Amino acid sequence: HRWTFTSSHQHLRYNPLRDTWVLVSAHRMKRPWSGQVEKEEEDQVPQHDPNNPLCPGNTRANGEVNPDYNNTFVFENDFPALQPNAPDPGYNQHPLFQSKAARGVCKVMCFHPWSDVTLPLMTLPDIIKVIDKWAELMVDLGSTYPWVQIFENKGAMMGCSNPHPHCQVWASNFLPNEATLSDRCQREYLKTHGEPLLLQYAKMEAEKQERVVVQNADWLAVVPYWATWPFQTLLLPRRHVQRLTNLTAQEREGLASIMKRLLTKYDNLFQISFPYSMGWHGAPTGPYLKEDQFHWQLHAHYYPPLLRSAGVRKFMVGYEMLAQEQRDLTPEQVIHLGNSITATYAIYKHR
Amino acid sequence: HRWTFTSSHQHLRYNPLRDTWVLVSAHRMKRPWSGQVEKEEEDQVPQHDPNNPLCPGNTRANGEVNPDYNNTFVFENDFPALQPNAPDPGYNQHPLFQSKAARGVCKVMCFHPWSDVTLPLMTLPDIIKVIDKWAELMVDLGSTYPWVQIFENKGAMMGCSNPHPHCQVWASNFLPNEATLSDRCQREYLKTHGEPLLLQYAKMEAEKQERVVVQNADWLAVVPYWATWPFQTLLLPRRHVQRLTNLTAQEREGLASIMKRLLTKYDNLFQISFPYSMGWHGAPTGPYLKEDQFHWQLHAHYYPPLLRSAGVRKFMVGYEMLAQEQRDLTPEQVIHLGNSITATYAIYKHR
Ligand SMILES: O=P(O)(O)O[C@H]1O[C@H](CO)[C@@H](O)[C@H](O)[C@H]1O
Ligand SMILES: O=P(O)(O)O[C@H]1O[C@H](CO)[C@@H](O)[C@H](O)[C@H]1O
Repeated sequence: HRWTFTSSHQHLRYNPLRDTWVLVSAHRMKRPWSGQVEKEEEDQVPQHDPNNPLCPGNTRANGEVNPDYNNTFVFENDFPALQPNAPDPGYNQHPLFQSKAARGVCKVMCFHPWSDVTLPLMTLPDIIKVIDKWAELMVDLGSTYPWVQIFENKGAMMGCSNPHPHCQVWASNFLPNEATLSDRCQREYLKTHGEPLLLQYAKMEAEKQERVVVQNADWLAVVPYWATWPFQTLLLPRRHVQRLTNLTAQEREGLASIMKRLLTKYDNLFQISFPYSMGWHGAPTGPYLKEDQFHWQLHAHYYPPLLRSAGVRKFMVGYEMLAQEQRDLTPEQVIHLGNSITATYAIYKHR
Repeated sequence: HRWTFTSSHQHLRYNPLRDTWVLVSAHRMKRPWSGQVEKEEEDQVPQHDPNNPLCPGNTRANGEVNPDYNNTFVFENDFPALQPNAPDPGYNQHPLFQSKAARGVCKVMCFHPWSDVTLPLMTLPDIIKVIDKWAELMVDLGSTYPWVQIFENKGAMMGCSNPHPHCQVWASNFLPNEATLSDRCQREYLKTHGEPLLLQYAKMEAEKQERVVVQNADWLAVVPYWATWPFQTLLLPRRHVQRLTNLTAQEREGLASIMKRLLTKYDNLFQISFPYSMGWHGAPTGPYLKEDQFHWQLHAHYYPPLLRSAGVRKFMVGYEMLAQEQRDLTPEQVIHLGNSITATYAIYKHR
């Protein structure tokens, strides 16, 4: 039986979204760990901190005062990696010393007025407001920019420097590497196989039920067959949806609900506020709005860093950086581990 | 003037070895940091620890006793990600659920009998013994395996779980992703431009002297034009050399010397034992030994995680994982920072 085979022997699996392979070495979970142990996250975050620039009513680095907001709140990043007016470095360069202009905007989006909540601890109506705001930002920024990257770095371990629940939105005048790669893979898949890659994949995973973490009428969250991070998941609509902006009201409700369940399950796994980086990939925007993007299927990636416990992470280092990504347990073992974990109430709570 | 331009405005730079772009946002170093601060490494490592499985004379997990070695010592990893006899998962699979056999060996190589030294604190003759052993392993494992990845994870921050100076060698029956990508880029460059990519690059950097960290008659260490990690470097021979095994005695001496100077400079930057992952890339081996590999030039990559100080690292998270790698200072700014730092004696010492 395939499941038994791949749980006991190393093998390679193909990632059709990135055209790469991952080395799966199930037996590596057995090795003892005497390396770095992560600090536990501070879990006494006050609901309102007068010194936190993300809280309602507070003053930010640039002197602006935040409104007394009730649900989401969006503002420009005070230290943006992308600005709208950077000059062009000039073309006609040597092939080994090529540069290009990079223009864009970086926004920060608070999810909630309180610092002591996270998405899984928020109510469904409040999560729907987050989704609606994401779609709104995609309309605004996507009207001109070809790529609008919505992403959340959650937890100090993922480089997040503010405990207030928030995500970021970076829009650029170029298609970033990962977008270009995913676009190419999805385009070629449609051409060769006649169906959008992730639409077919969602159907097959829904049938197999071997790697499904949580599901509802409109959505599916799976540990993808080609996952690289130990507890990586892929969130997929069941219908062919190209962009966040195309979700119906019912699909937004379903999304809020499946996100709450997925993230509750994450928190319950090691009984902490689970760290991760997540982000949305959908068909490119701006000039691409006028082009055929049938090969695209909207999806979100969740990349959590932990491996064995709240304190022991997976290090993607030497071999992974220089040769190939490697994982220490199979996606099917993750499902097995996760089956007993509830998605319906938070064992761990901030407050 | 180009240097001034790229130090003040964001732009993209092209990585010709990976066919990707990096977002360079010089002005981001100005932002305040209130996120995670790394633990200082323990610096009281004893010269010999009776409980460390890497020290001479000690017993390892599998019951074997280490010899009383005097310079390098190589043994099989007790928890290998790759084993020689893994069965084949079978072919003819669905394009979305593809797997392949992965076979290989994982070895550990101690650099020195003492736990309280690192490469930059070792003598040149002892570093030459490390280089000779690397070449020997490339001959042995490379006789059958197409890819032999030599890499060092240094420091707890880079997932290293044993302070004893050592590296790892993972040989595989497949070309890993990074090897495949680098092979393709170098092959196409030679075809289009008539000269091996990295041979031409080394010549141009040697002439420009804008990104050179240390150099000698046979070697050059540069912060590559397309560096992604803040203090990333690329170590290159000046002569066209395809593999570690092709280095002359003089080139091995020169390599020992430039490694000692480069790593001393790293240690002196923040006055700690500088963490990094490093590894060698050279022409593939095994069946490829009989093929033309003229496009390949041997090189080593150094990927250090730190950004601002011994305690503040660069997080390659949300945007970097989902969209594109981003750096917060230019390679030329790194050179400017590093110019005043000595490479000739260790300010920081373990003992
Ligand atoms: O083999 P080690 O040193 O125990 O493990 C370290 O290096 C490996 C190869 O880069 C990684 O897969 C591990 O995540 C890391 O902790
Ligand atoms: O913008 P922040 O949250 O300060 O910064 C964080 O996310 C960015 C985008 O992924 C990264 O470039 C930074 O390294 C990380 O610390």
